[in-house]
Amino acid sequence: MTWTLARRAERMNPSIIREILKVTEKPGILSMAGGLPSPDSFPVEAMRAASEKVLREAPREALQYAASEGYAPLREWVAAHLAQQGQQVQPGQVLITTGSQQGLDLLAKVLIDQGSRVLVETPTYLGALQAFSPYEPEIAAVPSDDEGPLPDALSDYARSARFFYVLPNFQNPTGRCMSEARRAALVKEAQRLGLPLIEDNPYGDLWFDTPPPAPLASRDADNVLYLGSFSKVLAPGLRLGYLVAPPGLYPKLLQAKQAADLHTPVFNQRIVHEVIRDGFLDRHVPSIRARYAAQRDAMRAALERHMPAGCRWNTPSGGMFFWMRLPPGLDAMALLPKAVDAGVAFVPGAAFYASEPQTDTLRLSFVTLTPEQIERAVKALADVLRREPGA
Amino acid sequence: MTWTLARRAERMNPSIIREILKVTEKPGILSMAGGLPSPDSFPVEAMRAASEKVLREAPREALQYAASEGYAPLREWVAAHLAQQGQQVQPGQVLITTGSQQGLDLLAKVLIDQGSRVLVETPTYLGALQAFSPYEPEIAAVPSDDEGPLPDALSDYARSARFFYVLPNFQNPTGRCMSEARRAALVKEAQRLGLPLIEDNPYGDLWFDTPPPAPLASRDADNVLYLGSFSKVLAPGLRLGYLVAPPGLYPKLLQAKQAADLHTPVFNQRIVHEVIRDGFLDRHVPSIRARYAAQRDAMRAALERHMPAGCRWNTPSGGMFFWMRLPPGLDAMALLPKAVDAGVAFVPGAAFYASEPQTDTLRLSFVTLTPEQIERAVKALADVLRREPGA
Repeated sequence: MTWTLARRAERMNPSIIREILKVTEKPGILSMAGGLPSPDSFPVEAMRAASEKVLREAPREALQYAASEGYAPLREWVAAHLAQQGQQVQPGQVLITTGSQQGLDLLAKVLIDQGSRVLVETPTYLGALQAFSPYEPEIAAVPSDDEGPLPDALSDYARSARFFYVLPNFQNPTGRCMSEARRAALVKEAQRLGLPLIEDNPYGDLWFDTPPPAPLASRDADNVLYLGSFSKVLAPGLRLGYLVAPPGLYPKLLQAKQAADLHTPVFNQRIVHEVIRDGFLDRHVPSIRARYAAQRDAMRAALERHMPAGCRWNTPSGGMFFWMRLPPGLDAMALLPKAVDAGVAFVPGAAFYASEPQTDTLRLSFVTLTPEQIERAVKALADVLRREPGA
Repeated sequence: MTWTLARRAERMNPSIIREILKVTEKPGILSMAGGLPSPDSFPVEAMRAASEKVLREAPREALQYAASEGYAPLREWVAAHLAQQGQQVQPGQVLITTGSQQGLDLLAKVLIDQGSRVLVETPTYLGALQAFSPYEPEIAAVPSDDEGPLPDALSDYARSARFFYVLPNFQNPTGRCMSEARRAALVKEAQRLGLPLIEDNPYGDLWFDTPPPAPLASRDADNVLYLGSFSKVLAPGLRLGYLVAPPGLYPKLLQAKQAADLHTPVFNQRIVHEVIRDGFLDRHVPSIRARYAAQRDAMRAALERHMPAGCRWNTPSGGMFFWMRLPPGLDAMALLPKAVDAGVAFVPGAAFYASEPQTDTLRLSFVTLTPEQIERAVKALADVLRREPGA
């Protein structure tokens, strides 16, 4: 081949999760592996009406090139929506992205030099690692407990770090939610250290009992770049997300956006704005919460009923995932093929660690199976586990 | 600000064209500046029927996460479509992108290291320069004449170059179309030099008299990465393009795509596939050709009628642009504010040069004004020119 690859291309590897999902997509497998929202939650009727209206009322605008910043009424909606959770945001700070994955790519492009230190949680969202890696950072994982990353540990890692990437609400993969006290301490310590924060919040609206504490961005807007998404509350196939940037950072992110894809499809932006403009999400999201809460309850009950001694798990108060730790000596990756043989699948946790993977962890999604399927899937997994020596 | 920018961010600048377009978007301005397709050409009815059908027949799939490679039937359509112009393409080589601008970003990410030599035409598409620059290449401009880049000049520039980016059909900005002989010579010389080619073809279907010669990719598939777009034949607001990669290069581009935005909105992919699957473009594109040909004819006639001696221009046989050279001593950038004052706008050509901008050039788009408006716009510009000393 005459083609010479960039050095960064050697840092790119097939997504482990993607490869795992291929294996687990065999017909008949009860999969707790995928992070896909339940398609039963997609507002198909509202989408149909909105598409029809947009193409009737503004076809020339919806199908033409458009502003790189995004559709102005949607940016205004985002700013108003975030104000409800305590963030002071001007529409001019909102950049509409082609899914929040693009937000991760854009900020990495603008903030990471080769060798730049970048901090992530232990464990962290795999898609963020994939977005950051091509820009060749040195990624360091900040220790955490069940409440999130440890603020006291931050100063050991923060020196000359470009940012700390955190997912405070119902984190992917652990499902954990940072406590109020932890948020306050983290923001304060980051301020003291001059450490910028990236706050990724795809799951914040999916709380089951009470809303999560206010976002980090509401506590120190200048030091936090915030990412949001419509994928979990409307539909991921539209690829619609946004970022909110401190004003000093916005122009460079906008220029990166222009170079990346000119703008996010304005057809999609107008449809979504049409769907949500009159408070649709206030009616729709509670139905997603109720659905996922029932599935969460089913998985908790099944885990308690079936899992052998020595297994430990959290119980998430929102989001899409349980995080489980196997009995000592067991390896989730080695377990996966046996689970698939038994008709059930999960994602081994090792994929989510930037360094020192903990091989006894695994992620269980509860949003794509019915409560009855969850019961069967968890029982099947427990049966596999019980056959393991040492379990 | 506590944020530290990546070095590459310093290479990012506001698009000159974007800034110019802001000036020229004043009400009442007859703009020949924009590169926007005519909205009269958008197939609104077909889009409406397809949206309705997709949301009726496959809402769960159209709104869910999807494959990073793209929607399989659309990839198959692209492969079959390209076969008609002589390219041997497997669907597995097709990657659906969020507009062909994203294709430029992805290939730059995978192929450009800091300091890598990258070759472009003189002049070249500004969006490509914007996509490449953040990866910090050393960009070199290959000399050209009215038939395209000069193959004999290539060996002076090709040493250790990562690729040569060319736009053979009705180039943006010059409107020129590479001759058959030039294509053959270019591909042969690139082969001899081991120089990979990037072939960008957004305008190839917009020919007025006869189709352009076969694409470079049909002559040496392994050495050419090909980019296509639905923006000019359907609608740009959907952001739908594709690239066709040599098999050895495809996996890295796919991984870059995953990291960039997971996948292109599958809703849009399914709608477009629904629109085009039954030969719609064979009926639709001729109507765009006829429209643009009439506008091209109007602009040619107006230029001949009104422009003062010393002005020179090509007559494009397709695409969207005339490229004009001013009488000696005149500067298109200095002329622009005077033109805007006179109610008419264009893009100064200097923006399209990677180096040594030729300030006496300008680009005139003929696709957004009616023939009658074109007559008025060209006359107004000619009047401005005639008032210039030296014109």
